[in-house]
Amino acid sequence: MKIIDEMQKEDIDTLLILNFNNIDYLAGFRPSASSILIVKDEPVLFTNQMDMEDALLNSKIPVEELKSLKELKKSLNGTIGLESSMNIQTFENLKKDVSLETKITDIVERMRSIKTNEELKNIEKALEIAEEAFKSTEFDNNKTENEIAAEIEYNMRLKGAKKASFDTIVASGKRSSLPHADVSSNTLQRPIVIDWGALYNNYCSDTTRTIIQTERHEEIFDIVLEAQKSAIAAIKPGVKACEVDKAARDVITEYGYGESFIHSTGHSVGLEIHENPSLSKRDETTIEKGMVITVEPGIYLKDDFGVRIEDMIHVTNKGRVLNKLNAKINI
Amino acid sequence: MKIIDEMQKEDIDTLLILNFNNIDYLAGFRPSASSILIVKDEPVLFTNQMDMEDALLNSKIPVEELKSLKELKKSLNGTIGLESSMNIQTFENLKKDVSLETKITDIVERMRSIKTNEELKNIEKALEIAEEAFKSTEFDNNKTENEIAAEIEYNMRLKGAKKASFDTIVASGKRSSLPHADVSSNTLQRPIVIDWGALYNNYCSDTTRTIIQTERHEEIFDIVLEAQKSAIAAIKPGVKACEVDKAARDVITEYGYGESFIHSTGHSVGLEIHENPSLSKRDETTIEKGMVITVEPGIYLKDDFGVRIEDMIHVTNKGRVLNKLNAKINI
Repeated sequence: MKIIDEMQKEDIDTLLILNFNNIDYLAGFRPSASSILIVKDEPVLFTNQMDMEDALLNSKIPVEELKSLKELKKSLNGTIGLESSMNIQTFENLKKDVSLETKITDIVERMRSIKTNEELKNIEKALEIAEEAFKSTEFDNNKTENEIAAEIEYNMRLKGAKKASFDTIVASGKRSSLPHADVSSNTLQRPIVIDWGALYNNYCSDTTRTIIQTERHEEIFDIVLEAQKSAIAAIKPGVKACEVDKAARDVITEYGYGESFIHSTGHSVGLEIHENPSLSKRDETTIEKGMVITVEPGIYLKDDFGVRIEDMIHVTNKGRVLNKLNAKINI
Repeated sequence: MKIIDEMQKEDIDTLLILNFNNIDYLAGFRPSASSILIVKDEPVLFTNQMDMEDALLNSKIPVEELKSLKELKKSLNGTIGLESSMNIQTFENLKKDVSLETKITDIVERMRSIKTNEELKNIEKALEIAEEAFKSTEFDNNKTENEIAAEIEYNMRLKGAKKASFDTIVASGKRSSLPHADVSSNTLQRPIVIDWGALYNNYCSDTTRTIIQTERHEEIFDIVLEAQKSAIAAIKPGVKACEVDKAARDVITEYGYGESFIHSTGHSVGLEIHENPSLSKRDETTIEKGMVITVEPGIYLKDDFGVRIEDMIHVTNKGRVLNKLNAKINI
């Protein structure tokens, strides 16, 4: 198993995995309540009674019943690798009454950053569902932002999504200048920023489109699009994540809107909507083949309007755009 | 401020709050990315640039920009209270290069267990939306479980919910015997277990109804209902959470189905769908006025069918049922 090799490289003898996404990744089974995957020579998934039937059916890793942490602690030895997401209460319970040498590791998260073909297919399917749902949605001016979001999410479910991969953003008119606006009960104004995604087989898609109206909107739109293309062109194995961010940021700065691009250029996507690496000023991670990353520059003009364009990129020899929906929406 | 009193009781000089629900509870503003609320004599909310506008508008606590943890650490002194949900990576960063005396505390979670009138109103509104959405949904036999779930969620949004408060469960026929089943693409069979809730102003509702068909279904339904009524009757200030669980469990056990009631009787609800105390065998928390708790016994007959009935209870001098929807659904 690849994970055993990675553990040896980091001198970890036993790896404790509690994060549902990491368990899902390794076991192919997603717990609904506390479970612990212990990876030594022979990995074992300890799960609770309620999940047992499902786990026995779907887990690729042998399953036993999780009785108590106390019991499990007896089987731990050597250097114990812990996930950074473990909470300090669990950590305290773990260390109680025993002497354990522990080490925080992101082995599983790093493995997850390179998508397998099966994972890629799930992401592509999630994206296809999201784009089809968008196309089935009528952006009628009498509808509210909330109604549009509700429709997109309903359409995604009917097309096979388990749910939205995150809270759908429909921010129109002045509200489009708020990058993290969710929805309001305002009727649609222009521009409309729609940021949405589907969850399929627990994998996420993430896309943003901005529907514009005026020439001024278009002027800003074209700068954002140029920045996005520049970042996508910069993606290839071997470059650093921060260099891709810079490619987008430089374009926007050149046009004088650097101060209005107030977030990072993108982030990896998979079982979680935000994974590492991110395309930010400070992330020095080397881009590798098999990563799936969003590229989503934006310009936010306070009290006026905002534009963001986001596509999903699969890293091959270059940055391959997974989206099929045009950046410019004609409606 | 009540929280300062609570801190004094626990000998905590400085309380660090990172959990979004706890920040929301105390500041009335919900961050979208890392924020830190530091409670000393003068509480201050440190938030990031993207949330700044929203925070300045909505936070009841003075807001400053969050620059780095390193910077903030300088202002910490005495015994530092930490939330149990803090992850070990943040904990490690916090302790790096400085000597801090820390202590895990659930002060805020305990405050949250007693709902204010404003919180209760939000919960009641969330429940009203969820029940109205349920009533607007047609349980047509040609529909799939997924379609029903999608419809309920769509209806909840149109009626004012931000979203579903958790993944809607629609489990019909044999699948009703799985307490944590979500949805499938099966067309509806009988019985149908529907477990759903709305999120309104960040507050959750949580209800379950089982639509039955045969006499055998009804026999089991009546036992579950009797167990639920027994638990609700047991709720009053001063009893222990585990005693309420026992009230439901005893009824089911008496009828010979004790082994088929494989989860706890209920849980508190508020900003999160599962809060403490829970109505479980092991929870010795004393029930207090102002708590809001679900009561949801169930009987699960493997490979056959299952029944669960769940209502939300507000603790006054007794257990006041907040639901208006009948337990028995005639359709």
